[in-house]
Amino acid sequence: MRYRKKIGAKEKLTTYNDIFIQKYKNYKGKWKNLFQNSNHIHLEIGCGRGKFITTLAQNNPHINYIAIEKLDGILLDCAKKIEEKDIKNIKIICADASELEEIFDHKELQRIYINFCDPWPKKRHSKRRLTYKGFLEIYTNLMSEDGEIHFKTDNKDLFEFSINECCDFGLRLKNIYLDLHKNEEISRNVVTTEYEEKFKGMGMNIYKLEAYSWNNNI
Amino acid sequence: MRYRKKIGAKEKLTTYNDIFIQKYKNYKGKWKNLFQNSNHIHLEIGCGRGKFITTLAQNNPHINYIAIEKLDGILLDCAKKIEEKDIKNIKIICADASELEEIFDHKELQRIYINFCDPWPKKRHSKRRLTYKGFLEIYTNLMSEDGEIHFKTDNKDLFEFSINECCDFGLRLKNIYLDLHKNEEISRNVVTTEYEEKFKGMGMNIYKLEAYSWNNNI
Repeated sequence: MRYRKKIGAKEKLTTYNDIFIQKYKNYKGKWKNLFQNSNHIHLEIGCGRGKFITTLAQNNPHINYIAIEKLDGILLDCAKKIEEKDIKNIKIICADASELEEIFDHKELQRIYINFCDPWPKKRHSKRRLTYKGFLEIYTNLMSEDGEIHFKTDNKDLFEFSINECCDFGLRLKNIYLDLHKNEEISRNVVTTEYEEKFKGMGMNIYKLEAYSWNNNI
Repeated sequence: MRYRKKIGAKEKLTTYNDIFIQKYKNYKGKWKNLFQNSNHIHLEIGCGRGKFITTLAQNNPHINYIAIEKLDGILLDCAKKIEEKDIKNIKIICADASELEEIFDHKELQRIYINFCDPWPKKRHSKRRLTYKGFLEIYTNLMSEDGEIHFKTDNKDLFEFSINECCDFGLRLKNIYLDLHKNEEISRNVVTTEYEEKFKGMGMNIYKLEAYSWNNNI
């Protein structure tokens, strides 16, 4: 994401006290308490400006959403969106994916969304890709047995890597798309990100997969 | 495949008595006897003019190959190739994939190759696609537990369908490629079909997957 640093973004974020969680590591294993209910928790890693997660949250009031984004200036836009739409079932965190195990406890999540993450195209950087097996191990550890990873990208090479990593790691796959918006009926019901809208408009292929544990007989 | 019927192809095929198996249903459960050894048997469904299977057979003398092709005129070209190259570990059959269970016994095969099969693009014809779950059930029944299906196509929609069918049927996947010939080092070692050489030359994407049973811990 091309990003111009916003001065004072971090301070502005702290004014959204119901939405922005500053001391997020304190909530490890206790996120349900913060939401004050025992609804399922779905996480988006790299929420950007929040179009995707806010739409989901509005559509699914009985799910709790947590959005992580490492760029505070972008997360600020997400915070504004949540406040404007008066959405109560999202909390946001300014953190990196490498911190996940410090933020969530074993089986605390039910679903993880990863949308249009950095493809890290160089082979020597493959461990940084969010679908690298090391990350898959963390995700499956943090999710309940019926947990699912939902992954979208416009990058063919990253998708090829991801599908192989999931299979090699032993996850089952379903709902695999090599051109998600090809079929108008399906496309109409897809909750999109800001990027995705742009790419879709340009006629680019969007790839999608859903991965889940073999024990979960969906 | 665009195909001009060759008059008398069937009769000409019968002259290749060591290669062309006319009464193929007689060998159900007895293919090892015909090969006079107990090497593994790999099948290609729709071998075309035989470039792929003859190359494999030459590279792997300790594997027995059986090639099925429903078009006799094309199979005749394959027979000629086998004779010219003096390959001893291939038998060919003029049959349709729908007959597989009458030709092979439970667990008689170790691998099945499907290359550039008819995509049957209309939804109402999806059951005719060679990766439809009904076919996957037949394949897994005819293969030993460590059996593998190796599938290649240039058709994105067929590949998307196939990958989902395999996953939904409960097969594990490995070695998935969305552009098989992208990497020169990998491409150099790929055994290609006649079609594939043409498509590769045109810069078209070739898709590949390998599917195997969950019980087989490769």
